[in-house]
Amino acid sequence: MKIAIIGGVAAGTSAAAKAHRENPEAEIILFEKDENISYAGCGLPYYISGVTDSRQKVVINTPEAFTKKYKVEVRTGHRVDEIIPDKKLIRYRNLKNNRDGEYRYDKLIITTGASPVIPPIPGIKLNNILTLRTINHADMIKNILNKNKPERVSIIGAGLIGLEMAESFSKLGLKVTVIEKLPQVLPQFSPEMAQIVGAHLKENGVDLLLKDGVVKFTGDNSVEKVITESGQEIKTDLVLVSVGIRPNVELARKAGIKIGPTGAIAVNNKMQTSLSDIYAAGDCAESTDLVSGKSIWAPLGSTANKQGRVAGENAAGGNNRHDGVLKTAITKVFDLTVARTGLSEKEASEAGFDPIGVKIKAVNHAGYYPGLDKLHIKGVFDKKTKRIIGAEVIGKNGADKRIDVLSTAIYSKLTTHDLFQLDLAYAPPYSTPKDAVARLGMVSQKKFK
Amino acid sequence: MKIAIIGGVAAGTSAAAKAHRENPEAEIILFEKDENISYAGCGLPYYISGVTDSRQKVVINTPEAFTKKYKVEVRTGHRVDEIIPDKKLIRYRNLKNNRDGEYRYDKLIITTGASPVIPPIPGIKLNNILTLRTINHADMIKNILNKNKPERVSIIGAGLIGLEMAESFSKLGLKVTVIEKLPQVLPQFSPEMAQIVGAHLKENGVDLLLKDGVVKFTGDNSVEKVITESGQEIKTDLVLVSVGIRPNVELARKAGIKIGPTGAIAVNNKMQTSLSDIYAAGDCAESTDLVSGKSIWAPLGSTANKQGRVAGENAAGGNNRHDGVLKTAITKVFDLTVARTGLSEKEASEAGFDPIGVKIKAVNHAGYYPGLDKLHIKGVFDKKTKRIIGAEVIGKNGADKRIDVLSTAIYSKLTTHDLFQLDLAYAPPYSTPKDAVARLGMVSQKKFK
Repeated sequence: MKIAIIGGVAAGTSAAAKAHRENPEAEIILFEKDENISYAGCGLPYYISGVTDSRQKVVINTPEAFTKKYKVEVRTGHRVDEIIPDKKLIRYRNLKNNRDGEYRYDKLIITTGASPVIPPIPGIKLNNILTLRTINHADMIKNILNKNKPERVSIIGAGLIGLEMAESFSKLGLKVTVIEKLPQVLPQFSPEMAQIVGAHLKENGVDLLLKDGVVKFTGDNSVEKVITESGQEIKTDLVLVSVGIRPNVELARKAGIKIGPTGAIAVNNKMQTSLSDIYAAGDCAESTDLVSGKSIWAPLGSTANKQGRVAGENAAGGNNRHDGVLKTAITKVFDLTVARTGLSEKEASEAGFDPIGVKIKAVNHAGYYPGLDKLHIKGVFDKKTKRIIGAEVIGKNGADKRIDVLSTAIYSKLTTHDLFQLDLAYAPPYSTPKDAVARLGMVSQKKFK
Repeated sequence: MKIAIIGGVAAGTSAAAKAHRENPEAEIILFEKDENISYAGCGLPYYISGVTDSRQKVVINTPEAFTKKYKVEVRTGHRVDEIIPDKKLIRYRNLKNNRDGEYRYDKLIITTGASPVIPPIPGIKLNNILTLRTINHADMIKNILNKNKPERVSIIGAGLIGLEMAESFSKLGLKVTVIEKLPQVLPQFSPEMAQIVGAHLKENGVDLLLKDGVVKFTGDNSVEKVITESGQEIKTDLVLVSVGIRPNVELARKAGIKIGPTGAIAVNNKMQTSLSDIYAAGDCAESTDLVSGKSIWAPLGSTANKQGRVAGENAAGGNNRHDGVLKTAITKVFDLTVARTGLSEKEASEAGFDPIGVKIKAVNHAGYYPGLDKLHIKGVFDKKTKRIIGAEVIGKNGADKRIDVLSTAIYSKLTTHDLFQLDLAYAPPYSTPKDAVARLGMVSQKKFK
């Protein structure tokens, strides 16, 4: 059996590794247009800041190591240009010698990922205006930091990457300005929770411009100023554009593979596309929202890994599923952990629920144990069933634990009653006798009385 | 309505507070034989070690503060000697003036707690042999530490309290010996997991004698030596006996209230005893094992708080339930977090399951992020349904999170498949793309193939 995989970061390498384990006899070949595979995309902000002290650490596997470990032929510098499903054929260009070639597969897995959106703002092509998506981007940013010693950086977009990089640049001593079109940071959070994060950014010396867009970038060869809609002129030595990503689906689209309403490749829970023997996984593919049942596009590292694994297992003859996601996301913004899972109130209304948001303040552990911190928790409940269908948690310590418990609760269709019943682990360094999650259950039960 | 509560620590004060909130018109009176109420029993090891730097911090509420906050009449120094259910009457002695009195209730809540087992070992009555259960005990231990400056302490029993106190005494500079009858520390853990904890104790300078019992204590007025079954003579200035606790049920038994097979007061999920209008909650009462459905006695602080709350709410006219427990327990032993939930393999077999234990090693978060640590995880699965029914987690960081996720999974009857599907929060400081819990699911799925 011949399995071809297009794209070699999170989903692609997960698929290749699992396909080999599932079927050690299969011939597995992985095409990647860049030189690197298997690097930790989510680790790039820490590689740039130096918190992770070597490049090698974020490169999980070199092509050579990967081949040795999983018996997968890795062809880096190979760009796949065409899929011909009828002939089970792919055509590629070897970018190293500019020669074209083709490969006949029995099963094909598309893991082409996503690319940063580059907004058509005047001046966007000036030097020192960058995005951050691949390890090449990270290398470029590090190179500029080392060579130019920039003092001021502007970050366009206050999403997860934007805020992680605000911290990274601050740690490196740069003066950071974040410019965001929306009236809040982190669009996937509710305004009142996002506001806590915005305040924390300011406490840490970040200039935050909300409800403001970029009109143009100015400068000679390199960017020197960001001009905003509100008329501000921000001097800058470096700009990071992080206004979103788009799934890389052109190859699939041209092959006649169905693209879903979200713009990503439509797949079922076996990661099969609309064409037989072709799978897709990771940031180029859709997923199912476990609460609403809708097809959504939720490109996140953990999902890419799991979808890749499932695609690889099934392509190699196995039988596994990826049922869907809760869009669970977490990020560290200076000292704060900021996390969400499930549906927002708005999403819940759109999905036909009658939602109610319940906000509480709780603490991470016993008040008399050192390291006491606040937790801000918001739960979204369905009025009819009293089920928890969404949650957000922000705090300095213990927020990651509570979001994972709440994510598990949402997955399991638990109600306000259940949250109080959960037997969560209590000892003074870890929790309170009634844990923050139990408190959320208690307060919600009262609301429903 | 008149509500009487007997016992004023975790369950009693929870019951009183909730009864007041449920029915602000009710007359609520709380009888406590000691002088203190509402202190944090689980915080005593940290009060003794000084990690918690004042006594006041572990006393959550003074009687005066509690009365002010919840309009509950608190009678400390009042020992209830008899319950006469037919007359809805309790008789008590005021220990302050040695006068007897009686009180007619409409609803009665028994929260008499548990007491340390004092084994009948020769020499047990020597000075400086203590137990640790109440804040009075903690005060006594602190007093001896300050006055006598002991250098060597022997701890009899390697349960949760024994090991927490091993750490506390070590932090205070004492040479600690722990003596345990069983061949392992922490009897509620499987031997191979307990062994990790035993090794960690030794690494931290604790002498650990396993499979060894105490034959006698010797000394003139004060204890000077512990003589063990294996013939060891351990010089000691102080002994802490922590070989277990027993529920305080004599008052209930004499009143004709049904005592369950575990020796604790039998209750239903409304916390009602066998006699009408009498409730029981906390360490004196039974609970239901959520996996096996059996009545068990699982005296833990978080359960006491919840049962107290439910008893108080129901006694005051409300309608709440405490469905049961998973015996979830967690403790900090020096740098290790040690936690368990659900059934052990042995308990699972006894409950009619066909269990299989699956052990994995995982990590707390991304390898390239500072603070990488190992996690030892054991899951107990039912072969027939593939449900997870028990778990143990040990690690320096992130073990508390995984046990809470696994406890929620067991509560929700999740299977190996579900553990892989869970959408847990991933970012490098918090997890790996496939979290330790997902890995447990993956490895277990393979085992079942």
